[in-house]
Amino acid sequence: SKFQYVKHFEQPHDLLKNTFIVVRIDGKGFSKFTNAHGFEKPNDDRGIELMNCAALSLMKAFTEIIIGYGQSDEYSFVLKKSATTYSRREDKILSTMVSHFTSAYIFNWCKFFPDQELEYPPTFDARIILYPTIENLMDYLSWRQADCHVNNLYNTTFWLLVHNNSDEDKTSQEKQAQAHEDLKGTFSKDKHEIMHKFGVNYNNEKDIYRRGSILVRQWNATQLNKQAKKEKKRKSKEEEKKEETKEEKQDITTKKKPEIIQDKEKSVIIVHEDLVDKMEFYERHDLFEKLK
Amino acid sequence: SKFQYVKHFEQPHDLLKNTFIVVRIDGKGFSKFTNAHGFEKPNDDRGIELMNCAALSLMKAFTEIIIGYGQSDEYSFVLKKSATTYSRREDKILSTMVSHFTSAYIFNWCKFFPDQELEYPPTFDARIILYPTIENLMDYLSWRQADCHVNNLYNTTFWLLVHNNSDEDKTSQEKQAQAHEDLKGTFSKDKHEIMHKFGVNYNNEKDIYRRGSILVRQWNATQLNKQAKKEKKRKSKEEEKKEETKEEKQDITTKKKPEIIQDKEKSVIIVHEDLVDKMEFYERHDLFEKLK
Amino acid sequence: SKFQYVKHFEQPHDLLKNTFIVVRIDGKGFSKFTNAHGFEKPNDDRGIELMNCAALSLMKAFTEIIIGYGQSDEYSFVLKKSATTYSRREDKILSTMVSHFTSAYIFNWCKFFPDQELEYPPTFDARIILYPTIENLMDYLSWRQADCHVNNLYNTTFWLLVHNNSDEDKTSQEKQAQAHEDLKGTFSKDKHEIMHKFGVNYNNEKDIYRRGSILVRQWNATQLNKQAKKEKKRKSKEEEKKEETKEEKQDITTKKKPEIIQDKEKSVIIVHEDLVDKMEFYERHDLFEKLK
Amino acid sequence: SKFQYVKHFEQPHDLLKNTFIVVRIDGKGFSKFTNAHGFEKPNDDRGIELMNCAALSLMKAFTEIIIGYGQSDEYSFVLKKSATTYSRREDKILSTMVSHFTSAYIFNWCKFFPDQELEYPPTFDARIILYPTIENLMDYLSWRQADCHVNNLYNTTFWLLVHNNSDEDKTSQEKQAQAHEDLKGTFSKDKHEIMHKFGVNYNNEKDIYRRGSILVRQWNATQLNKQAKKEKKRKSKEEEKKEETKEEKQDITTKKKPEIIQDKEKSVIIVHEDLVDKMEFYERHDLFEKLK
Ligand SMILES: Nc1nc2c(ncn2[C@H]2C[C@H](O)[C@@H](COP(=O)(O)OP(=O)(O)OP(=O)(O)O)O2)c(=O)[nH]1
Ligand SMILES: Nc1nc2c(ncn2[C@H]2C[C@H](O)[C@@H](COP(=O)(O)OP(=O)(O)OP(=O)(O)O)O2)c(=O)[nH]1
Ligand SMILES: Nc1nc2c(ncn2[C@H]2C[C@H](O)[C@@H](COP(=O)(O)OP(=O)(O)OP(=O)(O)O)O2)c(=O)[nH]1
Ligand SMILES: Nc1nc2c(ncn2[C@H]2C[C@H](O)[C@@H](COP(=O)(O)OP(=O)(O)OP(=O)(O)O)O2)c(=O)[nH]1
Ligand SMILES: O=P(O)(O)OP(=O)(O)OP(=O)(O)O
Ligand SMILES: O=P(O)(O)OP(=O)(O)OP(=O)(O)O
Ligand SMILES: O=P(O)(O)OP(=O)(O)OP(=O)(O)O
Ligand SMILES: O=P(O)(O)OP(=O)(O)OP(=O)(O)O
Ligand SMILES: [Mg+2]
Ligand SMILES: [Mg+2]
Ligand SMILES: [Mg+2]
Ligand SMILES: [Mg+2]
Ligand SMILES: [Mg+2]
Ligand SMILES: [Mg+2]
Ligand SMILES: [Mg+2]
Ligand SMILES: [Mg+2]
Ligand SMILES: [Mg+2]
Ligand SMILES: [Mg+2]
Ligand SMILES: [Mg+2]
Ligand SMILES: [Mg+2]
Repeated sequence: SKFQYVKHFEQPHDLLKNTFIVVRIDGKGFSKFTNAHGFEKPNDDRGIELMNCAALSLMKAFTEIIIGYGQSDEYSFVLKKSATTYSRREDKILSTMVSHFTSAYIFNWCKFFPDQELEYPPTFDARIILYPTIENLMDYLSWRQADCHVNNLYNTTFWLLVHNNSDEDKTSQEKQAQAHEDLKGTFSKDKHEIMHKFGVNYNNEKDIYRRGSILVRQWNATQLNKQAKKEKKRKSKEEEKKEETKEEKQDITTKKKPEIIQDKEKSVIIVHEDLVDKMEFYERHDLFEKLK
Repeated sequence: SKFQYVKHFEQPHDLLKNTFIVVRIDGKGFSKFTNAHGFEKPNDDRGIELMNCAALSLMKAFTEIIIGYGQSDEYSFVLKKSATTYSRREDKILSTMVSHFTSAYIFNWCKFFPDQELEYPPTFDARIILYPTIENLMDYLSWRQADCHVNNLYNTTFWLLVHNNSDEDKTSQEKQAQAHEDLKGTFSKDKHEIMHKFGVNYNNEKDIYRRGSILVRQWNATQLNKQAKKEKKRKSKEEEKKEETKEEKQDITTKKKPEIIQDKEKSVIIVHEDLVDKMEFYERHDLFEKLK
Repeated sequence: SKFQYVKHFEQPHDLLKNTFIVVRIDGKGFSKFTNAHGFEKPNDDRGIELMNCAALSLMKAFTEIIIGYGQSDEYSFVLKKSATTYSRREDKILSTMVSHFTSAYIFNWCKFFPDQELEYPPTFDARIILYPTIENLMDYLSWRQADCHVNNLYNTTFWLLVHNNSDEDKTSQEKQAQAHEDLKGTFSKDKHEIMHKFGVNYNNEKDIYRRGSILVRQWNATQLNKQAKKEKKRKSKEEEKKEETKEEKQDITTKKKPEIIQDKEKSVIIVHEDLVDKMEFYERHDLFEKLK
Repeated sequence: SKFQYVKHFEQPHDLLKNTFIVVRIDGKGFSKFTNAHGFEKPNDDRGIELMNCAALSLMKAFTEIIIGYGQSDEYSFVLKKSATTYSRREDKILSTMVSHFTSAYIFNWCKFFPDQELEYPPTFDARIILYPTIENLMDYLSWRQADCHVNNLYNTTFWLLVHNNSDEDKTSQEKQAQAHEDLKGTFSKDKHEIMHKFGVNYNNEKDIYRRGSILVRQWNATQLNKQAKKEKKRKSKEEEKKEETKEEKQDITTKKKPEIIQDKEKSVIIVHEDLVDKMEFYERHDLFEKLK
């Protein structure tokens, strides 16, 4: 029709190839939302598990996502460098991912909050960031986990102070103001000491609170078979060579032994490990390989 | 922290000022979704009303959206030229709008489909298109409504053929193949004739099917007051002048008389009018003014 | 070849359709360049004419440029809304225009500076700005001409003070410092008065200094013929109608009478008119029509 | 002023951090330009040297350019990953670089073409491409040099055929058409054979024709000093350790020995080496380090 020309005003934008695509989703106004729905403070297990459930759903739908990292009201997803979903079209990736996450969050609400009705529909914002190198990407994840750590340390101490404030003349509001005041200018060490006074050892707090949740994509059967074949080929080739580099070889073989996945359901695992500046984390999960 | 530098890899993109921002949302894989949820063919009233409900919710949350236009599994939203939501940041607008729409769709599902459980969470994609002139924008809306018209004409005739195919030896699949075959190469006129044969007058089909749904933002009380004052000022000024241009003045006054809104709830109205190439539609709803 | 894939890393960017494309070019480090080449202060006729010559050359090469506006070491070029040069590819337009301008500037240097050798090659930066409406575009040009005006008023007064400072104990540096001091906090009116004291009436300064240079594309023969035909058709049509709107018609006819261009060489004219907030300027040169 | 708001329509675009910025400049319509200025075919030494001269000038002005690669009418420039010129603003980098190159080309014309006046000002287009990894970047340069090789092989054979065509009845045009015909469908091997027939050994052709020109930035005095210090520190540290890794250490030391630069003038060297798929080229010139 004579109106079709308006279609040409669409301005496509393809994300630079061979870079890691990170999609970060964050709850809009979740200070209010969590309050309105009686979330426990500072960490609500139901809320965390619902976030993880939504993230898992997204990773099942978009198999080029290799890592998911969630904490508080946010989740980051890392697509591998070679990802070609929607030909790397920015608007398609951004919109369908945030829509899917939102959708899964609400759809699964009642499973995790059986006794708490959804008062109003929650929404999320999202953004895409590109990282050209694995170092930048690892720093990104370290950044988010360090943020989790700092916030959780603060919040845990904060609510401890509030709940242990037995001053009956004070309202909850006043107790919170007091706690903020008490924590002003304190360092990490100070907070640990405060907790110690109340008999709390922060290091015994649950990993899921202190470190957030990491979803790691596993190799699938096809990929494992391919790798096995490659490995076999490589080995027989190497055996022809002298045995001088024996040790080194063994080492590689060990590292590369991939997790065994029995069924499709286990295509993504959840861990609560420390990844801040931890090369070792990426090696253990074979992420350097998976993120290619 | 030493990781914070990764934040600077975010690449902000602000949408060109003084252009109309159009956000089009479209159901992902809704051929499958509508089938899986027993939508009536070709038009399911519950589905249409649910879409309109989600759109209305969005327009209540984003008051710079002046027009919404929905048909099939899609909805377009037009922000006024001067819109400053999220400082016109593309990713924020795109992500929060599609998230809000998705959220509202699922949240309200059971109101419109009380007897049909949601089998799986539906998702939507979204894109942003900029139009620099009101002509381009009007053509955009004409384009979508013309699309609605063409598809609905086809679908209505198609299902009429299928349902009236009494050949008992044929499966539904085969009847549909037959109907497609019958419609190949037909023009609008031919389809009207086919319907006529079955006693159907297409022009009597419901407007909501033939034209889709148009959500029009109304002036709010503050704006009306402001306009009333302006108008008053203008009038008194004009009265000082000679009376030669009397008729013209009256005309303007008539046109500008805005709809009276009693309460906040009526801030958006829904109509099913013809807007293809219809200047008059925009005038009647004072859209040239509202879209500024 | 196996390397060809790197071509796909190119990220094309097409400028939004139906918007005015403005390319502004500005001399890089021209404070130094003009000093090094003995430019007269504050305005060097040779320098101005060379800029105009380079701009004219650009407008001959890119016929979709309708207006050029130059002052100081900068030049702005306005492409019409419907421009399709290089399919509106941003990098192509930006790079070839700035390259052409630079090239023409140096190539023609010796014509305007026969006694001054080029000490080192001058360079220019450039940027592209999009304007969706004619009002924005007019404001852009007003902005640049107002800038010219303000700077020229300052510079003219400044150099008058310096040159009339007969204090023999002072170096030129010191006189300039003094003049800056004298002008601190002065308004336009004050500067006019200072000049008046030295017998200078700013309004008698050359238009080319006070207003800069405007290059206006003229209709070409083909366009004129087309318009003449259209006009003829329109007239005969209108004559069939009643004669009530006679006056109005005449008015349009008058306005639309285009400049007569004898030869290709006169395809662009140069004027030094006031365009700040001047609708009339655009009408006189039929720019509303040409910029479409 | 009230017009200043138009400045906010400028849409800045910063190039993704930590990626290699490649700027490729290409002569506009150089088929015509080289003909009009009597360039020798297929390679004109004066033309090549002028291009190299302009490129050298650019690399002196922009010290973050580490590599330049030129062939035919094009030149590519590689900025190091950490480059911060103009805060990585795309339009500034693109426009000033192409302007500088153009400027230097014309400014130096008469040095290389003393007997050939410049008939008209040549212009260049330019584009920016980002590469996230060193592999992609190396492939980019391989791509350009492979292009040089293929074209030069063709052109050399082509002009040999034309010049050796002694058919007196044929015009030059016809001889060229004949040569194109003769070369249709031929492979590299075939072209080598044709040349052999005319007594030409392609491998004896000048490197500058077959491989183009590579400009390599040298370490400057400050950087060398810094590196020397680092090296010293590293060595003394290592000496404390056991001597088991002796061999390896030596190897590194050898590789890292940087070129000695006497004066600022030698900050960029020109070579005509093979870089297609040649890791070794990058190692020899310490480019992995320099490009960081
Ligand atoms: N009580 C409780 N609150 C939580 C939990 N997880 C997140 N929140 C709340 C704490 C914060 O107020 C909020 C997240 O902070 P944000 O910076 O994202 O702010 P908010 O979402 O309010 O605003 P935004 O729209 O993102 O700018 O969510 C939880 O497990 N329990
Ligand atoms: N039965 C029924 N189907 C509908 C209704 N409204 C929309 N649909 C279906 C018909 C189409 O198959 C589909 C919309 O077409 P699209 O071009 O958007 O395709 P779809 O969503 O399948 O794929 P996409 O992910 O958008 O590319 O939705 C309705 O009221 N009733
Ligand atoms: N003497 C003299 N100087 C002029 C004339 N036209 C322009 N200029 C000088 C005055 C200013 O110092 C300079 C233009 O100012 P800009 O703001 O463009 O600064 P400049 O080019 O130095 O730096 P930039 O690279 O543009 O940031 O050019 C002229 O006709 N005569
Ligand atoms: N005779 C001669 N011609 C050369 C030499 N170096 C380059 N050229 C010519 C050969 C080609 O026709 C032309 C470069 O090809 P391009 O693909 O860049 O085409 P051209 O510049 O004509 O068009 P463009 O504006 O880049 O699309 O320059 C040379 O040394 N001698
Ligand atoms: O989805 P379609 O087929 O209507 O067409 P489109 O939306 O323009 O295509 P895409 O969703 O791929 O942008
Ligand atoms: O949302 P914040 O405050 O954590 O910080 P941000 O997400 O970088 O800010 P914005 O959401 O405005 O991009
Ligand atoms: O160059 P200025 O100072 O006139 O201001 P600008 O051109 O807006 O600044 P920039 O050249 O850095 O874009
Ligand atoms: O100019 P060509 O033909 O070598 O190919 P290109 O440079 O990729 O094309 P364009 O100059 O149009 O980007
Ligand atoms: Mg935020
Ligand atoms: Mg939030
Ligand atoms: Mg948050
Ligand atoms: Mg689509
Ligand atoms: Mg759809
Ligand atoms: Mg659709
Ligand atoms: Mg500037
Ligand atoms: Mg300047
Ligand atoms: Mg300037
Ligand atoms: Mg090209
Ligand atoms: Mg070329
Ligand atoms: Mg070329």
